[in-house]
Amino acid sequence: MSDKIKPRTLPGFMELLPNEQILFNKMRETIQKSYEKYGFLPLDTPIIEDANILLAKAGGETEKQIYRFNKGENDLALRFDLTVPLAKYVTEYYDKLSFPFKRYQIGKVYRGEKAQRGRYREFYQCDVDIIGDGELSIINDAELPAIIYNTFKELGFGDFTICINNRKILNGLFASLDLKEDAQNILRVIDKIDKIGPDSVKRELIDFIPEEKVDTIMKFINIKGTNNEKIKALEELNICDETFCIGLDELKQVTKFVNIFGVPEENLKIDLTIARGLDYYTGTVYETFLNEYRNLGSVCSGGRYENLAEYYTDRKMPGVGISIGLSRLFFLLTEYNIISGENERISDVLVVSMGEEYESVAEIASILRNNDIKSQVNVEKQKLGKKFKAADKLNVRYVIVIGEDEVKQNLVTLKNMKTGEQQTISIDEVIKIIKGE
Amino acid sequence: MSDKIKPRTLPGFMELLPNEQILFNKMRETIQKSYEKYGFLPLDTPIIEDANILLAKAGGETEKQIYRFNKGENDLALRFDLTVPLAKYVTEYYDKLSFPFKRYQIGKVYRGEKAQRGRYREFYQCDVDIIGDGELSIINDAELPAIIYNTFKELGFGDFTICINNRKILNGLFASLDLKEDAQNILRVIDKIDKIGPDSVKRELIDFIPEEKVDTIMKFINIKGTNNEKIKALEELNICDETFCIGLDELKQVTKFVNIFGVPEENLKIDLTIARGLDYYTGTVYETFLNEYRNLGSVCSGGRYENLAEYYTDRKMPGVGISIGLSRLFFLLTEYNIISGENERISDVLVVSMGEEYESVAEIASILRNNDIKSQVNVEKQKLGKKFKAADKLNVRYVIVIGEDEVKQNLVTLKNMKTGEQQTISIDEVIKIIKGE
Repeated sequence: MSDKIKPRTLPGFMELLPNEQILFNKMRETIQKSYEKYGFLPLDTPIIEDANILLAKAGGETEKQIYRFNKGENDLALRFDLTVPLAKYVTEYYDKLSFPFKRYQIGKVYRGEKAQRGRYREFYQCDVDIIGDGELSIINDAELPAIIYNTFKELGFGDFTICINNRKILNGLFASLDLKEDAQNILRVIDKIDKIGPDSVKRELIDFIPEEKVDTIMKFINIKGTNNEKIKALEELNICDETFCIGLDELKQVTKFVNIFGVPEENLKIDLTIARGLDYYTGTVYETFLNEYRNLGSVCSGGRYENLAEYYTDRKMPGVGISIGLSRLFFLLTEYNIISGENERISDVLVVSMGEEYESVAEIASILRNNDIKSQVNVEKQKLGKKFKAADKLNVRYVIVIGEDEVKQNLVTLKNMKTGEQQTISIDEVIKIIKGE
Repeated sequence: MSDKIKPRTLPGFMELLPNEQILFNKMRETIQKSYEKYGFLPLDTPIIEDANILLAKAGGETEKQIYRFNKGENDLALRFDLTVPLAKYVTEYYDKLSFPFKRYQIGKVYRGEKAQRGRYREFYQCDVDIIGDGELSIINDAELPAIIYNTFKELGFGDFTICINNRKILNGLFASLDLKEDAQNILRVIDKIDKIGPDSVKRELIDFIPEEKVDTIMKFINIKGTNNEKIKALEELNICDETFCIGLDELKQVTKFVNIFGVPEENLKIDLTIARGLDYYTGTVYETFLNEYRNLGSVCSGGRYENLAEYYTDRKMPGVGISIGLSRLFFLLTEYNIISGENERISDVLVVSMGEEYESVAEIASILRNNDIKSQVNVEKQKLGKKFKAADKLNVRYVIVIGEDEVKQNLVTLKNMKTGEQQTISIDEVIKIIKGE
């Protein structure tokens, strides 16, 4: 009998059980609603794109990880993020859009990374970006933390901190120290401060930078206090570098406006060690941490970039955006038991019959649905015990049982699955009870 | 300057403008909500699967159209429907599911068809299926038309007709005429009746079937009247074939229960010419037509199948399901001007400043959002005229303008974009007006 093919889901591809999927979808919808509250427009670009367009800017790791293949004469690839498709989109439909163009996109992206627990090859990104035509006010950089704030409030995973910094401050500092060429290496070391601590950072820096410059850097990244105190301390460094000064001014503006946009001080923290990679971001950068689970890493990151679509057009389009890596976030949150799909449900009610009272089952279900009560029916020749087992798996709040007696009396038996309480009543009363809760 | 790559979206891939996307998403959500009302559980299986698993059952056209490629040592393919992944899923997670398993999935599928207007290579399917373990009551076949009915009522494209038939009736008829081997060819001709008319069907049949048998077939497909009259006429044919009798009994049951599930008689029509392909479906089959746009073809189809996962398991899993091809439906409906995204919006309000009153803009937007009013801000140094042009593109109902005077008086100017009416009032009054509508 073994001509059967053993079914399997590929490693690195998330596939959830229904109750987990319900929870995942809820998170997805919460994010979507939050993005829409800020007026962002939805996009849903194709997953397959022309490989040459998708890879115009790529290289290195991206090129290696990408799913690329031919179909007929076409050289195709699966998108590896939602930013490159956005760059393509705003160039292609430029005339039909108004700028600043504010869009969100929630969709799957593909990276053939080494399969690893919690690293997915197919995963959801939830992006919002604001794209300017020629220029884009720095105040936009302050709206994004407001979106992050609202989104994570709604998601409800507990306290969180949005950390912001400005790349120009870092770049200006290094320029003023004549360390422009070491910037990449310095940032790479600084990035590890959470893991290895400031002493080790200092030791590593001394390996390739003169000690007095390391001292300035350490003094810089050790700046403590409230956001205002940090800004004051940065001003007092008296660093004579134009980029530094612009960055500091931007950071001041953003911090001020984030507050006006409604984010409480405790949820926004200037963190001068945050850099977010090296090539892409040019100004404001964001990372977001769950206070009790800082070890999960940043759950929402992004920043300001100078020129979104430079590979497609001469038109300068600066932008600022954030992204939530939903699949990985979902994995981590379930892994740490912060969330669980265990009690999720679609149906409030399962309608079943004792025997063959299927007509009554269909009739009652129809009435419930007309009253906007999500209901599943069971019309199988199964034992009642089996039907109740299914009810448990579905996590329904109620089971409605219809037997001969109920049909005769034109009533139904309603069982509350939480309390075990059972009552034989009219369908009108049932609706009141279910809706009344 | 021409080192730029000209961006383009591949032919056969739907990419919408934001207002169209809003409408598309609304339709998608309407379908999802309708499926959930009937208690179906969500799934979101990967788009990439092991090619050998995906193609276990395929052949012919499917094999040619599929996107298949290697990544490392893996032979991969993009799903071409949502049914094969479902078969994989129920086999893989059998122990964790309860049966009948009722799931919906709304997602993109991929077929490298010849590019043609309105034919997509990447398109959304919206499927619901009920999968039994060993057996599955015929009453389930009656619930699906109820789901179709509710879904198309909610979508609101006007009157529609769900046509049902039962393949066993057709198969039994041909068997009784000793035409089993011609069944495929006969059905192919009958399928064209809408296009070529009954006379041409008859002529074509006579080419390869004895005339008296053609007469029986024509008599059969010409059966007219209400559903009950058709059933009565079928009974009166007195066809002595077991399959025919089982099919007729199933059709009677389904027709009866569809009604109990709440579908009005006028929306369900027995149509004995419907066959829906040949290999897959074994019992009930469905097609759905918009009454005023019958020429669009079926907008929701499906049927009963004997054995969902036979390529993966010895376990018999009968099922019944329907599918809406959303991308194609959306294309056709916009093409025929039945729907239009023109007036769709995300934001109710756009908040702008006359000059540099950006702080007030941020403050007001924050208040609106806290009151669950979707609002976009414009904080650019743009002329007011440009900002109003953007408001037009965004289709917002209101623009809030804040100038020096407004700031001084702690008021805002609210412009109703439909009436052109303008009033300078407090933000509390604004909220009342926007929410009051």
